[in-house]
Amino acid sequence: MTDVRDIAIHYAHQNRDRFLADLKDFVRIPSISTLEEYKPEVLRAALWLADHLRSIGIENVEVMPTEGHPVVYGEWLKRPGAPTVLIYGHYDVQPPDPVEEWQSPPFEPVVRQDQLFGRGASDMKGQVMAVVSAVEAALKTDRMPVNVKFLIEGEEEIGSAHLEDFVKKHARKLKADVCLNTDAGMIGADLPSITYGLRGLAYMEVRVYGPSKDLHSGLFGGVVHNPAQALAELIAGMHDKNGRVTLPGFYEKARRPSRREREEYKRLPTNDKFFLSHTGVPKLWGEPNYTPAERVSLRPTLEVNGMLSGWTAPGGKTIIPAYAMAKISCRLVPDQRPADVFKQMKAYLKAKAPKTIRWEVIEMHSSEPVIVDLAHPAVNAMADGLERVWGKRPVFHREGGSIGAVIYLQKYTRVDSVLTGFGLPDDGIHSPNEHLHLPTWQRGIDTVIHFLFNLEK
Amino acid sequence: MTDVRDIAIHYAHQNRDRFLADLKDFVRIPSISTLEEYKPEVLRAALWLADHLRSIGIENVEVMPTEGHPVVYGEWLKRPGAPTVLIYGHYDVQPPDPVEEWQSPPFEPVVRQDQLFGRGASDMKGQVMAVVSAVEAALKTDRMPVNVKFLIEGEEEIGSAHLEDFVKKHARKLKADVCLNTDAGMIGADLPSITYGLRGLAYMEVRVYGPSKDLHSGLFGGVVHNPAQALAELIAGMHDKNGRVTLPGFYEKARRPSRREREEYKRLPTNDKFFLSHTGVPKLWGEPNYTPAERVSLRPTLEVNGMLSGWTAPGGKTIIPAYAMAKISCRLVPDQRPADVFKQMKAYLKAKAPKTIRWEVIEMHSSEPVIVDLAHPAVNAMADGLERVWGKRPVFHREGGSIGAVIYLQKYTRVDSVLTGFGLPDDGIHSPNEHLHLPTWQRGIDTVIHFLFNLEK
Repeated sequence: MTDVRDIAIHYAHQNRDRFLADLKDFVRIPSISTLEEYKPEVLRAALWLADHLRSIGIENVEVMPTEGHPVVYGEWLKRPGAPTVLIYGHYDVQPPDPVEEWQSPPFEPVVRQDQLFGRGASDMKGQVMAVVSAVEAALKTDRMPVNVKFLIEGEEEIGSAHLEDFVKKHARKLKADVCLNTDAGMIGADLPSITYGLRGLAYMEVRVYGPSKDLHSGLFGGVVHNPAQALAELIAGMHDKNGRVTLPGFYEKARRPSRREREEYKRLPTNDKFFLSHTGVPKLWGEPNYTPAERVSLRPTLEVNGMLSGWTAPGGKTIIPAYAMAKISCRLVPDQRPADVFKQMKAYLKAKAPKTIRWEVIEMHSSEPVIVDLAHPAVNAMADGLERVWGKRPVFHREGGSIGAVIYLQKYTRVDSVLTGFGLPDDGIHSPNEHLHLPTWQRGIDTVIHFLFNLEK
Repeated sequence: MTDVRDIAIHYAHQNRDRFLADLKDFVRIPSISTLEEYKPEVLRAALWLADHLRSIGIENVEVMPTEGHPVVYGEWLKRPGAPTVLIYGHYDVQPPDPVEEWQSPPFEPVVRQDQLFGRGASDMKGQVMAVVSAVEAALKTDRMPVNVKFLIEGEEEIGSAHLEDFVKKHARKLKADVCLNTDAGMIGADLPSITYGLRGLAYMEVRVYGPSKDLHSGLFGGVVHNPAQALAELIAGMHDKNGRVTLPGFYEKARRPSRREREEYKRLPTNDKFFLSHTGVPKLWGEPNYTPAERVSLRPTLEVNGMLSGWTAPGGKTIIPAYAMAKISCRLVPDQRPADVFKQMKAYLKAKAPKTIRWEVIEMHSSEPVIVDLAHPAVNAMADGLERVWGKRPVFHREGGSIGAVIYLQKYTRVDSVLTGFGLPDDGIHSPNEHLHLPTWQRGIDTVIHFLFNLEK
């Protein structure tokens, strides 16, 4: 007797080329949420996705406004009594800069050697379309095992700025038994994984003001504290020699990894060699008492994301700049809180900034760190799905990134998230030449089909 | 009996409005030498100046090519036996950035309250036109007291990149008894001054390379040494707590100010209050054993002129940048040498840069520091001219800026320079809202007329 799920899997295999064509259409839309001038394109991506959901049979599809970019919502609720899965995703992407480093234009998706290249191919239009394709396949069986709701936001890459308000406001509409979140990626093409923790984020801009205008360095060099130098001095003081963050109280509430977690981490293939080859740095860096895999997920960090002062175009300009700034973000672990970290940065600057300059901290955005309940039945449904497709039990680990949606859904709807994904560490997300490994993506579609049918039991 | 010089002075006073109109025409041309796209404008400024010199009776005017921007040459040599004055100047200007801080467009000169606003109004189109106007007035008497040659370059703001080659190649053509260089500015509107020393310059770009591409800070934060942070750490180490430069050997050859110089410096009005009000900083900075006036001219410095890494546009991007750079320049005093300073920077980086990053130093441009012979008769001719117009003896001091021309003329033609100028410290040169104090400028024209006639004696 043929299992219904096999019909769905068969359908998915028959439609692989068309699924890919749909994904390429989606990637072609440059939905860069952080750039104001791309606002119409972000909307266009939302409208495209809404149309696509309608075309596969999803009902009550809406492009719902927020104070920022809209949320795409849709539902299929024709199996009363069956579990309801809330499918989370985001349709916005990072800017493609530096554009000149792309081998093919970022918004003209192209397949080269099993990889689909394009901004958003992996993060996360590919992941969204894997789940959408799996739902399509399940619906086509006419024996859809579960109810589904879609919550696809347009602001993940800018810290899900308005998602909290949205989830709070529409908590009842979003109510479900579990959230499927495929934004967490996997460890390697041959190692399926489930993520049970995410780092939080506190993103800020630190500004240093010196002279009231740019000064001629010949006329004034020697009497003013150069703001670029002063900022450099302050940034240099934010880490000690062992790579530990020096903001006062930074580690106070940070949860220390348990012995069991550190034991489990030994199963991860992400060793020194992995990080060296995936970053291209001459030598790894960071807290010496933790392995690289631990440092990128179980430990908090402070990063300079950008830095600007004075004359940076080709050629020279002999000025003392009036102003210098750095974009700085901290990745946080349980039980650190972004609000505390902003305070710690201000306390650090208050204590360390010299009287020769003025400074300011702009709090830009933040998200709380999170730990997911591993006892949830949906976690087992996903673990089983991954094992069926990959032939091995998944690894459980924590992730270094931040997903606001997971926190807000827990907070306002009490919906836990199953965190997995079919994006690989070397997909180059947030970098030039982002790509998606298509064989892994296709296994991902099969996995989500199994996950949906496993929930039926 | 009317002195011939009085006729010239009278002519200058009669023609003040037209002299200003000529200067405004000159300022309107955006001759920004550092920006490739402004090359045609730089050439237009050269052609405008050549035409203007011809119009006042200068002969053999040529726009002479170099490997960069051309030099405007011209001569009037009809007084055999009389001294020959080589008039140096530059017709190029700094970029107007940040443009949004200008109260009126930088290349639409406008007079507000005795000040002419515009990029180059003070540095140094105004200075060039003061001398050109004085020469015009002297020529109009039909009793021109001296011979003159003009050497007006187009690359001063980019370190006079090709002037050395030009002076070397045309040393005979440029031969003169003295060079008049009005690029040195004056101390205050009521205090004429002659400059007898200039700081040299070593301008470089320091580049720090980390990962092979921008990385997601969530996925990789904690294992790579952030290049922006590494650059900040290196910059922070370039000064000690007393504001002294730490490059190995930096001060070794730096000539210490003599007791007599430090005594003369007490006459300067440029005290703490002056520097506070002219810079707008909350507190002065620098070597505690020297006064501010000494620090900006008798002491060498190291400045960050620009700094760039990662994401600097509005909004946030959670990356670890692949790369960071700083434009760094040192102001040098006798007997430091730019070539040594470049070596010292490399030695510093070799000793201090961690193995977690790669680095590179690009040597951009340089000029030697210089001391001028105060015994030259032309120095007295200028001192007398300044005293006649201002009613007081000028102050002798050293300047903090760098003028390549002075060095090259000394080196290849053995022509000493008389360094003065009618630009004021608060003219905002190299800054937004650059302006020229017109009453001082008009006195400057009179002064140059006296200087020319004083040389006749």
